[in-house]
Amino acid sequence: MKSLDTNFCSVFGIRYPVVLAGMAGGPSTPELVATISRAGGLGTLGAAYMTPEKIREAIRSIRKLTDAPFAVNLFISQMQTSTVPIERNVQYTLNQMRDDLGLPQKYDTSITITDNFDQQFAVLIEEKVPVISTAFGILSNRYRDQAKAAGVKLIAMATTVEEAILAEKAGCDAVVAQGMEAGGHRGTFDVSDQSMGANVGLFSLLPQIVDHLHIPVLAAGGIMDGRGLVAALALGASGVQMGTKFLTTIESGAHPAYKQALIKAKTEDVVLTTVFSGRPARGIKNRFMEHWEKIGVQPMHFPIQNSLTRDIRDAASAENNTDYMSLWAGQGVGILTQEQYAEEVFLEIVGEANRLL
Amino acid sequence: MKSLDTNFCSVFGIRYPVVLAGMAGGPSTPELVATISRAGGLGTLGAAYMTPEKIREAIRSIRKLTDAPFAVNLFISQMQTSTVPIERNVQYTLNQMRDDLGLPQKYDTSITITDNFDQQFAVLIEEKVPVISTAFGILSNRYRDQAKAAGVKLIAMATTVEEAILAEKAGCDAVVAQGMEAGGHRGTFDVSDQSMGANVGLFSLLPQIVDHLHIPVLAAGGIMDGRGLVAALALGASGVQMGTKFLTTIESGAHPAYKQALIKAKTEDVVLTTVFSGRPARGIKNRFMEHWEKIGVQPMHFPIQNSLTRDIRDAASAENNTDYMSLWAGQGVGILTQEQYAEEVFLEIVGEANRLL
Repeated sequence: MKSLDTNFCSVFGIRYPVVLAGMAGGPSTPELVATISRAGGLGTLGAAYMTPEKIREAIRSIRKLTDAPFAVNLFISQMQTSTVPIERNVQYTLNQMRDDLGLPQKYDTSITITDNFDQQFAVLIEEKVPVISTAFGILSNRYRDQAKAAGVKLIAMATTVEEAILAEKAGCDAVVAQGMEAGGHRGTFDVSDQSMGANVGLFSLLPQIVDHLHIPVLAAGGIMDGRGLVAALALGASGVQMGTKFLTTIESGAHPAYKQALIKAKTEDVVLTTVFSGRPARGIKNRFMEHWEKIGVQPMHFPIQNSLTRDIRDAASAENNTDYMSLWAGQGVGILTQEQYAEEVFLEIVGEANRLL
Repeated sequence: MKSLDTNFCSVFGIRYPVVLAGMAGGPSTPELVATISRAGGLGTLGAAYMTPEKIREAIRSIRKLTDAPFAVNLFISQMQTSTVPIERNVQYTLNQMRDDLGLPQKYDTSITITDNFDQQFAVLIEEKVPVISTAFGILSNRYRDQAKAAGVKLIAMATTVEEAILAEKAGCDAVVAQGMEAGGHRGTFDVSDQSMGANVGLFSLLPQIVDHLHIPVLAAGGIMDGRGLVAALALGASGVQMGTKFLTTIESGAHPAYKQALIKAKTEDVVLTTVFSGRPARGIKNRFMEHWEKIGVQPMHFPIQNSLTRDIRDAASAENNTDYMSLWAGQGVGILTQEQYAEEVFLEIVGEANRLL
């Protein structure tokens, strides 16, 4: 059987092939990122929704805590800066939820979406982050060349063999095979048909991607412990990427009510939805999803829907109200039982894997 | 790391923890079943759609080929013998397909469903088959007690932790954890809400079921080779159940055109549908599914829909027309490349697993 010292470890200069998933929206605090990297894994700052200034600040905070390599995760830009009309049914549906939360109704008929990917990316190059990981597609050649010139390693997420091949051809140093079990956004490149993306179970997806690629492949989706890490290695992975398991760590920036919801949730409570952001993502079923589905209105595309729902999600967070938060979670959620220190979680994973190998 | 000599092997008296899935409708010929059992695994006759007489005949054929243990798979009875009205929209939709195939239209307004589970089960007890495996639920106490008294071992299929616990409590000797990757019918007990059943990826489902059970757990869904077998063992399984991989063996009774479709199909071509049988099942997307979905008519419940679509599927088979067959396949289908002898496939799986362990 293989060992934990995989080619992913040697290429990325880390000790254990365990990567913190790039969870956007707050969970991946600098403390959590640094803890994983310090323990020998690869921490990832989920920077997709952060301003360039906040990204720079967070990177500097991570560097104060550790000299070890870490990654920063961005979403490949999905639309240019522009002002787009808001569909009436969408605003109407959101206003019903605002009513429920005691929020003021909104009557805007358009919204301005600001694409700051270029500025986000520039900060990562200026700060010479060790690794940039991306979701929703691959970097264009211009960005790729900047990263290569700065000595930055690249990881892309794929949900099909075809996407994985594209990522390898585009010069990525590793690819994440994202099984359908994964929490949060599906990484599927093209969801313009408003589908739920590609949803292949990791047992099927991983060996097929491994068979078609020459670079290291990380397994993501439903991996919660050392058993999952060893299973992924058996299927040909060079490591794993884990998100849900670290959401309930002490260092995680996930809302306390969200952490409690994760600990309580069963695997069958977790479903795919596009209603929060306009892109398919997996989370714990709650009133926000149920309301939207009952009304039957088609959400707008990402990132428009994400901007439109923000006031509702923010108000829900302020009131500890999980009914209207996005409670991203993978299908492994049923295994979570308690809040724990991230280092303890990490050492348990690696320890169990070493015993099984 | 564990070895291939698991507690499933000792309890069931076999050498390698590899079980042929109970594929109903023809693929599991006595030759295929006997080949797997003779090679040291557990062959399974998929007898769900067979008459009691044909089941007896097949069991005797298997026994002429091998003394090794084998299993017979049945579907837990879903409705009593009765005559039920056919929904007009359903008959209309089927008649459009009949037109396309040059079949006579049907104008029946009712159909008689014959439940022969009792007679099927009686044959298995009379013939003292070594193992009975079931899908869609668990045996009632009466059947369970008959099986125990006859020294027959029992395996049930589960798609959730809750179902697995029910199966253990009902006296099963092993449980199959069926991941969402699996081909053919979802084993979910209750689909009366006309849902697609529970669809949890094997990476998430398997360790959770293992953590809750004391009897051996078999992993099913997307397992195509020795890598998958070792990965399943790492996640706590005592063995695997494989169907899709054996569909394209020489001994498989799958239609030659179906075998070719399996070899050509990509993983993303495989989807869930209820249109063939009334129960959710995974197969290669074809014209039958597309036509039904375009019309938007809700199929009838299992097994009514299954009986209603039979003339169409039979005619398509007679004409080598994969447009209107049910082309069951799991998400591992992308790995299939050729027809092979079943023994060769089996030995490759076990050999690869032994090298990885």
